[in-house]
Amino acid sequence: MRVTVWNEFRHEQEEAAVRDVYPDGIHMVIADFLKKEGHDVQTAVLDEAEHGLSDAVLDRTDVLVWWGHKAHEEVEDEIVEKVQARVLKGMGLIVLHSAHFSKVFKKLMGTSCDLKWREAGDTERLWVADPTHPIVEGIDEYIELEQEEMYGEHFDIPTPDEHVFIRWFSGGEVFRSGATFKRGRGKIFYFRPGHETYPTYHNQSVQRVIKNAVKWAAPPNTSEPVRGHYSGPGL
Amino acid sequence: MRVTVWNEFRHEQEEAAVRDVYPDGIHMVIADFLKKEGHDVQTAVLDEAEHGLSDAVLDRTDVLVWWGHKAHEEVEDEIVEKVQARVLKGMGLIVLHSAHFSKVFKKLMGTSCDLKWREAGDTERLWVADPTHPIVEGIDEYIELEQEEMYGEHFDIPTPDEHVFIRWFSGGEVFRSGATFKRGRGKIFYFRPGHETYPTYHNQSVQRVIKNAVKWAAPPNTSEPVRGHYSGPGL
Amino acid sequence: MRVTVWNEFRHEQEEAAVRDVYPDGIHMVIADFLKKEGHDVQTAVLDEAEHGLSDAVLDRTDVLVWWGHKAHEEVEDEIVEKVQARVLKGMGLIVLHSAHFSKVFKKLMGTSCDLKWREAGDTERLWVADPTHPIVEGIDEYIELEQEEMYGEHFDIPTPDEHVFIRWFSGGEVFRSGATFKRGRGKIFYFRPGHETYPTYHNQSVQRVIKNAVKWAAPPNTSEPVRGHYSGPGL
Amino acid sequence: MRVTVWNEFRHEQEEAAVRDVYPDGIHMVIADFLKKEGHDVQTAVLDEAEHGLSDAVLDRTDVLVWWGHKAHEEVEDEIVEKVQARVLKGMGLIVLHSAHFSKVFKKLMGTSCDLKWREAGDTERLWVADPTHPIVEGIDEYIELEQEEMYGEHFDIPTPDEHVFIRWFSGGEVFRSGATFKRGRGKIFYFRPGHETYPTYHNQSVQRVIKNAVKWAAPPNTSEPVRGHYSGPGL
Repeated sequence: MRVTVWNEFRHEQEEAAVRDVYPDGIHMVIADFLKKEGHDVQTAVLDEAEHGLSDAVLDRTDVLVWWGHKAHEEVEDEIVEKVQARVLKGMGLIVLHSAHFSKVFKKLMGTSCDLKWREAGDTERLWVADPTHPIVEGIDEYIELEQEEMYGEHFDIPTPDEHVFIRWFSGGEVFRSGATFKRGRGKIFYFRPGHETYPTYHNQSVQRVIKNAVKWAAPPNTSEPVRGHYSGPGL
Repeated sequence: MRVTVWNEFRHEQEEAAVRDVYPDGIHMVIADFLKKEGHDVQTAVLDEAEHGLSDAVLDRTDVLVWWGHKAHEEVEDEIVEKVQARVLKGMGLIVLHSAHFSKVFKKLMGTSCDLKWREAGDTERLWVADPTHPIVEGIDEYIELEQEEMYGEHFDIPTPDEHVFIRWFSGGEVFRSGATFKRGRGKIFYFRPGHETYPTYHNQSVQRVIKNAVKWAAPPNTSEPVRGHYSGPGL
Repeated sequence: MRVTVWNEFRHEQEEAAVRDVYPDGIHMVIADFLKKEGHDVQTAVLDEAEHGLSDAVLDRTDVLVWWGHKAHEEVEDEIVEKVQARVLKGMGLIVLHSAHFSKVFKKLMGTSCDLKWREAGDTERLWVADPTHPIVEGIDEYIELEQEEMYGEHFDIPTPDEHVFIRWFSGGEVFRSGATFKRGRGKIFYFRPGHETYPTYHNQSVQRVIKNAVKWAAPPNTSEPVRGHYSGPGL
Repeated sequence: MRVTVWNEFRHEQEEAAVRDVYPDGIHMVIADFLKKEGHDVQTAVLDEAEHGLSDAVLDRTDVLVWWGHKAHEEVEDEIVEKVQARVLKGMGLIVLHSAHFSKVFKKLMGTSCDLKWREAGDTERLWVADPTHPIVEGIDEYIELEQEEMYGEHFDIPTPDEHVFIRWFSGGEVFRSGATFKRGRGKIFYFRPGHETYPTYHNQSVQRVIKNAVKWAAPPNTSEPVRGHYSGPGL
């Protein structure tokens, strides 16, 4: 499978605390563990031309992984529209953590995607809510992250197709996620963890979920629907 | 609306600690606050003939509220089948707390309805997951119960139609509920709180949820579907 | 309830065949039968200032009904964004027929909203798929429209929250709708029939569905969710 | 994958018209095309001891395919309960045509599973409603069956997890199916076609759907949820 990992890649360059955790950027850590699965992985970052997402790059992308946080507004609308169109055609999309506020995710959801948040080192537990789902293969009944940013309900997303995880935070909140969404022929997975100051993407279980999600989000081998004027097959 | 509140009514007679909280039985507390809403409320308990659920009683029941815990197996299958049939015809059903293991709920769900549990005085927070839902009218964004029995995932129920609440427990667990289910022409609401040793049904917010749920679960004013052999309307 | 009926109102002015069916415009027919339900109804059309949807108008709109077809692109993005924001805050939205391609619907869905279509006088049957739903109160198990435009699958919408109707067309196609969607605190109902050359909105059953839908889509009496930075209630 | 194909196998022995289409039984046709996929396939029929579904047989069954029609009531409750328990543990279940009324399906659904029907040689078209779904791989946008029994709405099933197909019948009806249901760790697919007097299971597209469904319904490689008393992991 051909995977493109997109990262805003600003925190890592501007903040020592983040650079300590992800010296080469969050995208390089994610790309690395996906390569080990045998995928053909490329990376792209905000400050590249076309944010690294030229048509040529998108042409060879089966699944796109997206991390962004502080510079959502700098992503060009033209690129956002291209990504949306690709998802509707079948490209998988894995939306991580603060990318809940990315233009790409908001455009595909149609809602504000707003939520509660708190940076206070809460302990997070991600409980498996759907034990049939391929995204939780190899995962125990919960994943515990000792310290993470809190995200709380109400999360302003459309009703998900599936609730794969429900999270618990030590400070008293819950959060629906990971959540899956079918859009057109494409599949989207939103997965909450991954605040830039914590080593979340080094966690083996988090990596396993992302690996599983990439596999699950592969473009379907199904027919492209016919739309538009239709004289019909007759009877 | 005509409401019947069914209670096993054993704990209250056998255990002083429960009797202290519900001297006349859980059903009487629930019936009382539903009467104040202007409903025509009757009660029924396990040890009555036909468990208090004769055809005459069911004939004048729009919504049935069910609490049971230690004597699920004593409920006659014939009564269970009658209740199931009534729900499919349009009678609303509110399933409370340990009634997740009632024959009635298990029969309508088709699953084991099993879960995790712990009696350790956990604090429970019920977060509103669906702010459009009439069941949460008048409820703040969460209800806090200082002490309750813990119920945890994975809860073995079919995928709910709607997730109205998601619960948080101080011990580290989450739980999907209240959950709604459409079955035939009937509507079912499962609502978690209500361990017999805690004053949960005296809580104003819990009462409000049950009042809202009764209203929501009213039989629809829709046509009864036609089924069976069908020659069709022609064209 | 305060209802605003929005219509593109171009076909009726430009084409005699449409004017014959809707001399004062589709919006006037819809406004008329909604007024008879006791609602406070106003109308708005594309060629008014701000398309008739000033803040003052939106402030007094509980439910917005939307019909458009040939001039979707002329609707200003600023108005579209206002409507989206209002829906997320709780305003109901009823999307009729060719408004599947309206900017408002596409923005709220996040998909192309494309479909198959054919203008060939197909007979349409709208079968009730959810006999518990208030939108089908007073409706027989199907509504038959002798002649309508065909809309066929695959309809590129997100998975609906509920499937209220499934349609059958004599030419051989099916179509999911009416479909409901929760977005933020708002409720959306897409209802397929209503090609401008047919007297569909004069049909009593179609009128009944729209009346029911307006009632169903009323803003909820629930708390507005709290979002953003959250220090939390403590424990 | 280890697949067991269960058939009532009465029509084929009692009616020449059915024997002409399925000389060795419906199960043998299905088993044959599943074997060609490389699966380890066994068959079982009603009149065998334990209906051919001993614990030993079930122990080596990953996915169970079920066809029944006229003798549902002869299936022993004990076997039904075993099958239900296996599904909740992860065994896949493919329910075909008139098995909508099988005890196994009704027990897992909790509803009457009733519907409209007519044997009048209607043409059936199965439109793909979910182009992301692995069950429709290799299928065009619809499958046409020249003659089939009509099944019409309202189909009394719980809200499906997914609507893979929606059917159209030339006589004027629609029907939701195939439909998927998650129950416990198991996955269930209901697939409508297959009246015993038509050569439906010889149709290449129908075979392809069943092959896809068997693959999709494989038991998940996920953890078995922990339920019951739970002291919790502590924090």
